[in-house]
Amino acid sequence: MPVNLAPPRPEDLLPVKGVALGVAEAGVRKANRKDLLVMRLAEVANVAGVFTQNRFCAAPVILCREHLALRPARALVVNTGNANAGTGEDGLARARKTCAELSLLLGCDSTQILPFSTGVIMEPLPVERIVAALPHALADCRADNWAGAAEAIMTTDTVPKACSRRVELRGKTVTVTGIAKGAGMIHPDMATMLGFVATDAAVSRAALQRMLAEATARSFNRITVDGDTSTNDSFILLATGAAGTPRIDATNHPDYAALAAAVAEVAVWLAQAIIRDGEGATKFITVKVAGGKTEDECSRVAFGIAHSPLVKTAFFASDPNLGRLLCAIGNAAIPELDVGRVALYLGDVLVARDGGRNPAYREEDGQRVMQQSEITVRVDLARGAAQTTVWTCDLSHDYVSINADYRS
Amino acid sequence: MPVNLAPPRPEDLLPVKGVALGVAEAGVRKANRKDLLVMRLAEVANVAGVFTQNRFCAAPVILCREHLALRPARALVVNTGNANAGTGEDGLARARKTCAELSLLLGCDSTQILPFSTGVIMEPLPVERIVAALPHALADCRADNWAGAAEAIMTTDTVPKACSRRVELRGKTVTVTGIAKGAGMIHPDMATMLGFVATDAAVSRAALQRMLAEATARSFNRITVDGDTSTNDSFILLATGAAGTPRIDATNHPDYAALAAAVAEVAVWLAQAIIRDGEGATKFITVKVAGGKTEDECSRVAFGIAHSPLVKTAFFASDPNLGRLLCAIGNAAIPELDVGRVALYLGDVLVARDGGRNPAYREEDGQRVMQQSEITVRVDLARGAAQTTVWTCDLSHDYVSINADYRS
Repeated sequence: MPVNLAPPRPEDLLPVKGVALGVAEAGVRKANRKDLLVMRLAEVANVAGVFTQNRFCAAPVILCREHLALRPARALVVNTGNANAGTGEDGLARARKTCAELSLLLGCDSTQILPFSTGVIMEPLPVERIVAALPHALADCRADNWAGAAEAIMTTDTVPKACSRRVELRGKTVTVTGIAKGAGMIHPDMATMLGFVATDAAVSRAALQRMLAEATARSFNRITVDGDTSTNDSFILLATGAAGTPRIDATNHPDYAALAAAVAEVAVWLAQAIIRDGEGATKFITVKVAGGKTEDECSRVAFGIAHSPLVKTAFFASDPNLGRLLCAIGNAAIPELDVGRVALYLGDVLVARDGGRNPAYREEDGQRVMQQSEITVRVDLARGAAQTTVWTCDLSHDYVSINADYRS
Repeated sequence: MPVNLAPPRPEDLLPVKGVALGVAEAGVRKANRKDLLVMRLAEVANVAGVFTQNRFCAAPVILCREHLALRPARALVVNTGNANAGTGEDGLARARKTCAELSLLLGCDSTQILPFSTGVIMEPLPVERIVAALPHALADCRADNWAGAAEAIMTTDTVPKACSRRVELRGKTVTVTGIAKGAGMIHPDMATMLGFVATDAAVSRAALQRMLAEATARSFNRITVDGDTSTNDSFILLATGAAGTPRIDATNHPDYAALAAAVAEVAVWLAQAIIRDGEGATKFITVKVAGGKTEDECSRVAFGIAHSPLVKTAFFASDPNLGRLLCAIGNAAIPELDVGRVALYLGDVLVARDGGRNPAYREEDGQRVMQQSEITVRVDLARGAAQTTVWTCDLSHDYVSINADYRS
């Protein structure tokens, strides 16, 4: 059961001019489910992407990087059920085949197709079934199909993830709409498993890449379910320019900040949705670390807490076994950390200070916060001005069940 | 249920001349269980220790380091049920009180007592109950009490962990006997939660510290249950000299290698026993990584596999979902790793090569290995001569149950 996350209402998802989305049942791994998505782009669209740092990155990730460097993209194609990762040269050939077939149908070059896959690793991609379903996905393409697209890219997700924002750029309204998938193997290092955000604003490729990097740093790179970085992480930001607003060609353009804020807002919403739907999640945990010398050391403390299986099982049990939080802070290997100055809060409750438990702390106060489905942990390192925020979930029996049974 | 680990038979545990062990029920956290251990040492004994790198290290760890630097130790005192970690100045005062009271009973200086605690973090140590039980533990002291000692230091352990080796040093027999505890919060960075190994050989302090560091590097620093480094990790090697063998005063002494090998053998046995009894463990996994440029990069790959919750749940399910192993290898962030050269074996089965699945691999072969209770994963990075081995266990429902319920 996801934590306070409802499926998007289709009417809340705003079409983005210049983007059409179509889905189909290709039968990649299972029959009778939508597992193929095609996103067609207007000719003038710009696309920026960030990708997994995993050395065994998937074949479609390798092709995506290549294609983005060559030509403006005309379409994205996404399949679930098979990651096409750990598949060597044969996997690259199958991803190329998918691009080639779609480009024939669209009358463009095959390098104008960006491929994405997600699912089981080290299995051959059933490319013939995907190719056979491409015409159906194209026939389904329409601008108001974001809800269908969000559903088609789900794997162990229990809820489709999508949201929209509107922003005014000098009197004209532009739209930002995004979708993402992911629930396990989530510790993005550039991006989540798959995320796609589109706007009809006009943005140069360089400004778009910068906007994407900023949004990623504040969203998908600040979440973890299980500390495992996927082979297929890809986060794509595309700008069709179809709204007719002035082209944003640099970060000092007067419209840059407003659009970047909307893009980041959508990215943060999607990243948090992935945590709310984290495999087996029963609690949504926000970890805020402040008072660090650098943002990096704040991150190490925050992820130290967010990755600790002992902290995560205590949250699952609603047990204020808060020594495990101190232990996780101590494990972050911060040089010369004075533990006597560290303050630890659970919600609004001051739990630890002066290197030990706050004398005023009462177990029932910790218990009260622990019962909540949304909990904030705050750490003050009291040695600088840097800070960061990370989102994670608890570790429950269902996480083990889901991952012990995933392939079966 | 531990994996192929039986309780030690008391008759297999060899007394070490110069060491007497006594246990008592102090009622630290629960009534009617042995939770206090005192180890008395002969006057000429040397003691070496390695300790946790956790910044929130426990009060007894701080005192132990201090005392080891000051005077020869005469006794060790260990309590379970309370870690006396995250307890600030008050925790230090309580640990000092324990040492002072025991030193009065033994007629030595309080800095000749080495204190150890394990259990719940951030709770005040019930020092009065410990002090009250010290005379009972002293009255129980005897040389053939290693089995009782191994039992008295257990927390979430299901099996006491102890073993002995004999080694001939120029015609004379010396003994090495050790005990350890630990099942969760196990990713030692110097030591396991608590380990004590004694020998009646005579070894200088410097040579003993070197021997301890070598044994630790090959044993306790090569295991992980859940990637959480405890606040209380301590591993102690003590040499009483009571066997009357020539004093080993340097690593080039003719007896050094033979004794060091026996000490390492005991340490490896104890470290593996901790994994076999890992919280919720149903499988004992050996991860061997070879062909690295450095041992450090082999370690990063090996612990990358050993820490991955997705790999560990696949082992729990006996599911050869081996793409998760490739993903974990890829996450180790080895610079310029050529994944096309990496080979992955599960037991004797070649699973992956040339960047993808071995064409000759058959699912039933992987399934056959996965059914076993002891499984070896081998990775060949094919870029150098370095290698390492790490031991871990699977991640099961019982791990979540044990850690969700631990305090209750």
